[in-house]
Formats: sequence, structure tokens, C-alpha cells
Amino acid sequence: MSTPEQSWFTEEHESSGSSIGFRVRERLHAEQTPFQHIEIYDSTDWGKLMVIDGCMMLTTRDNFFYHEMMAHPALFTHSRAKRVVIIGGGDCGTLREVLRHDEVEQVVQVDIDERVTRLAEKYFPELCESNGDPRAELRFDDGIRYMADCDPESVDIVIVDSTDPVGPAEGLFNAAFYSSCFKALRPGGIFVQQSESPLAHITLIKQMRSALRVAGFQAVRTLTFPQPCYPTGWWSATLARKGADLSGFRERGAQTKQFATRYYNAEIHKAALSLPEFVREELGE
Amino acid sequence: MSTPEQSWFTEEHESSGSSIGFRVRERLHAEQTPFQHIEIYDSTDWGKLMVIDGCMMLTTRDNFFYHEMMAHPALFTHSRAKRVVIIGGGDCGTLREVLRHDEVEQVVQVDIDERVTRLAEKYFPELCESNGDPRAELRFDDGIRYMADCDPESVDIVIVDSTDPVGPAEGLFNAAFYSSCFKALRPGGIFVQQSESPLAHITLIKQMRSALRVAGFQAVRTLTFPQPCYPTGWWSATLARKGADLSGFRERGAQTKQFATRYYNAEIHKAALSLPEFVREELGE
Repeated sequence: MSTPEQSWFTEEHESSGSSIGFRVRERLHAEQTPFQHIEIYDSTDWGKLMVIDGCMMLTTRDNFFYHEMMAHPALFTHSRAKRVVIIGGGDCGTLREVLRHDEVEQVVQVDIDERVTRLAEKYFPELCESNGDPRAELRFDDGIRYMADCDPESVDIVIVDSTDPVGPAEGLFNAAFYSSCFKALRPGGIFVQQSESPLAHITLIKQMRSALRVAGFQAVRTLTFPQPCYPTGWWSATLARKGADLSGFRERGAQTKQFATRYYNAEIHKAALSLPEFVREELGE
Repeated sequence: MSTPEQSWFTEEHESSGSSIGFRVRERLHAEQTPFQHIEIYDSTDWGKLMVIDGCMMLTTRDNFFYHEMMAHPALFTHSRAKRVVIIGGGDCGTLREVLRHDEVEQVVQVDIDERVTRLAEKYFPELCESNGDPRAELRFDDGIRYMADCDPESVDIVIVDSTDPVGPAEGLFNAAFYSSCFKALRPGGIFVQQSESPLAHITLIKQMRSALRVAGFQAVRTLTFPQPCYPTGWWSATLARKGADLSGFRERGAQTKQFATRYYNAEIHKAALSLPEFVREELGE
């Protein structure tokens, strides 16, 4: 990996029996933080790669799918989100998308591992270009504790942009955490969390949706989108809303948005909420 | 590969610098036909794999995305397709989906390599379950010549279910072939062809759409869908119509269809036609 010859970085995803790889020139960085093992690779066609504990986190070329879909559907569903909390999200790509919305007055991002952000600043500077925005506050702390200590009804949107539900992120996928988020949200507030692959992790999605309802959320919807660097290449986010439904969104606002996107638009927002037949059956929708 | 230990079959896709692999138990079959090299693997989580010239063609577990999206959007757009031609499609999965439509009176499938179908019958018998349907005619011949010799205005839908535009399938991606298809179609007839990954092959999609218009097709639309076993995990099909538009489909028919699907439904049909922002810009739509 440290020679100039090309090789491949491949993530073999044990539970789904599938792998995804990228042709790389070299490994630019590797470190063990108190929380996880982080690697950065330079690839031939996908820009930089960030790998955490052997799992592909993002590439320069395809992160726009994920970051746009973690931010804009929630922001264009809320009538006017002033205060947003991001749990995880250390690469700052979701933060950048949230800050594109003028109605947002404050975003607090709470990632447990400062090193993710420091490496993103170096290797994915375009994702960090809004980190100096006066509306952004970057905290490096335990997101579970942060949400538990949050003032009740003080937040409009909580975005959980975490790694898979093993290791540091495990506690972000259960009813106790969801209850903290529910309490912290204002009425009409929206929770959104990355919810893995509909093809490979449908059981997890069902468990999440059930736990969100247990925590008090009345409306729950799962949306899907392509994400080439994640197992199966197809990913999802699950939204939940406190005391309001999730059937519509500010379609006119999305159609006339004053910022550029690469994946998201109003049509894609509607499309993402359309569930394939097997997903509909599994989720009982 | 021939030992009982598990290993991985990985397709390294040179032009996109990405790879996709599946954990396999063993290679069940390999042969060089007059046209191509075909392998069959037994995988741990994805059923059987068919690999042609080193490229993943299909897996038991995920072929439903592709086969349903190659068949149903075209069939539910046409008012009443009686005669359908499939060029390629030797695994018979698209044929099976087409034959689910009662209005179809005849389907002629023309694949150049009979061995693909014989191996599908053995290793993917579920895809071949409709091969004995009296409406189905399986021909093993040159699809380019078949379309050139077709009676004018004799076909309602042409489905081009081919390998990548290199090797045997190269001649299926140009205006000369599209002109044959245009001539063979009745007014209002629909052409549909797999058109690779919107992320990795947008130039090809643009060339195809341009060549289809040169051949006389007035309306052209590209739809997208997940396809985990193909490069980037995200795939497309491009539809074109002779002398009619492609803006709607028989939505009520799709909602009340009398057969089961796993991916396709009326909502997904609409969703698939929603173009991401970067695709819309690239295609000038």
C-alpha cells in the first residue's frame, strides 16, 4: 500500500457476504484513536477514502448521496428548523449541507472522536468548508450523554450520522437514546438516522422503527438512496417526527432552493420515500 | 475456488476503479463458448452467481431489481403490448417478468449464446420457469440481424437485455441498431435497453440517448434503480418511444397488477423516473 504501484482497498462485509473495493495509489494515513482505527487512502478514481475499523466511511466522489439525503429531506420537511443537532457526522459533510439552509440559526455537532474531524479538515477540506460558520458549534463528546442532558423541547432536528450499530455507535440504535432525542425535540421536531441497507439490514430497520415508536414518535418513514461505497451500494435513512405526520414536505421550497445539490431535488425527495414492494411488505406499510 | 474453503469472487471494474465481490464456496462450472467465457459460482449469501468474461451478470438474490425494471416500466407504459422482442436476456429472467403480463401474446427472445440459457436452466431454474409458456419463443441467433430482418411495424416492445457495450454486445449500442428497432416497432412502440451506471457511465447514457433520437425516437427517458452486483451498485435503463410520449404510464394497472413483484410497484415506477440533480444536468433535462 505504501509503494507507488496501484492496489485495491477492499472491505469484505462479513454479514452480507459481499465486498466493495476501490483502486488505490497509497495509504496516506493510519492511526488508532481512543475510539477507533482510522485510515485515509488516495484512490485512482474516487478521490480520498476514509476507512474506520476496516469499514468504508466515505469517498470524495460519492459522499454527496449520503450527506444530502441525511440533511435535506428532514430540513425540507420541517416548517422552519432553527436549531439542529448532529450526533456523529465528524467528517462535517452533513453539517455543510444543513448550513446551506438559511432558516437554521444554530447547529451543534457532537462527535466522540475529534480525530475524524481533524483528518476530514486535511483530506476532505471541501466537506469542512462551513466549519467556521458562526452558526456551527463543533463539540467532541459523547452524543448519547449530550442528548440525555439536552434541555427538553429545545431542538428542531436531530440527525444521527453515525457508523454501523457496533462499537462506539451501538448505543445510538435503541429506545433509550431515542427517548432522549424525543424529549429534546420541540413538537413537530424531526429525528433522522442512517439506517443501513434495505437489502442487507431490513431486520435492523424494523427494530429501529419499532424502538422509535416505543420512544414516542408517532410518524416514522424510511427513505432509500444509492450509496456506492456502502455494502450493497444501496442505503437508507429513517425519519421520525414528534407529534406530527411525515406525509408531506415543503416541495415548493425544495424546487426553488437557493443552493446547489448533486443528488437531492424535490422529485428525488418524493422518489426516496417510495418503498420497493419487498420493503413495504417487511415494514408492514 | 475448487476447495471447500470459502473465498471471494471479485470483479475489479477497471474503468470505474471500483470492485464488487461475493463470498463463494466453490466454482460450479466454467466454459468457453464460441462467444464468451461463462462461470457459475455458489455463494454463501447471494445464491448462485453467473459471471461472463469476468463480469458479474446476476446473482440469485439480487437479479429481481434488474429483471423487474427491464420489463414492467415498459409494459405498464404501453397501452397493450401484444408482441415483445427481447434481444439478449439469455438467463430468461426478463422473459419471465414479461410473461406475467396477460396482454402479451408473443415474446421472441434472441440471444446469441444458447449456453447462457442452458446454464440458467440448470443453475437459475426459477428464472426459466416460464420458458415453456406457449407464448415464448427462444431463438439462439444474432440479435442485430434479427432486428434488421424484422417485419416493419410488427413489434410493440423491444427489450435489449445485453452485456456491457464491449465484445458481443457492442453492436447493440449504436444508431444503426436503433434504426432497425425503430423500423420494427409499431407506432407507440417502446424500446428499452439497459444503460449502465449513471455514476460511472453517464457519457454512454448521453451517447445512447443521442443515437436513439438520430434513429427517429421522439421521446427518450432514463430510469434508475439499485443493482448491488453491478459496478457502483446503481444502474439504469433507457426507454424510447416511437411517435408518442413517455410522460405517463398505466398507473392504475400497475397498482392493481395481478402478479407479485419484489421491487417494482406503481410508486417505484414514478420514483425511478425522477432524475438526480447531476443526471438531470448531464442529460440537459
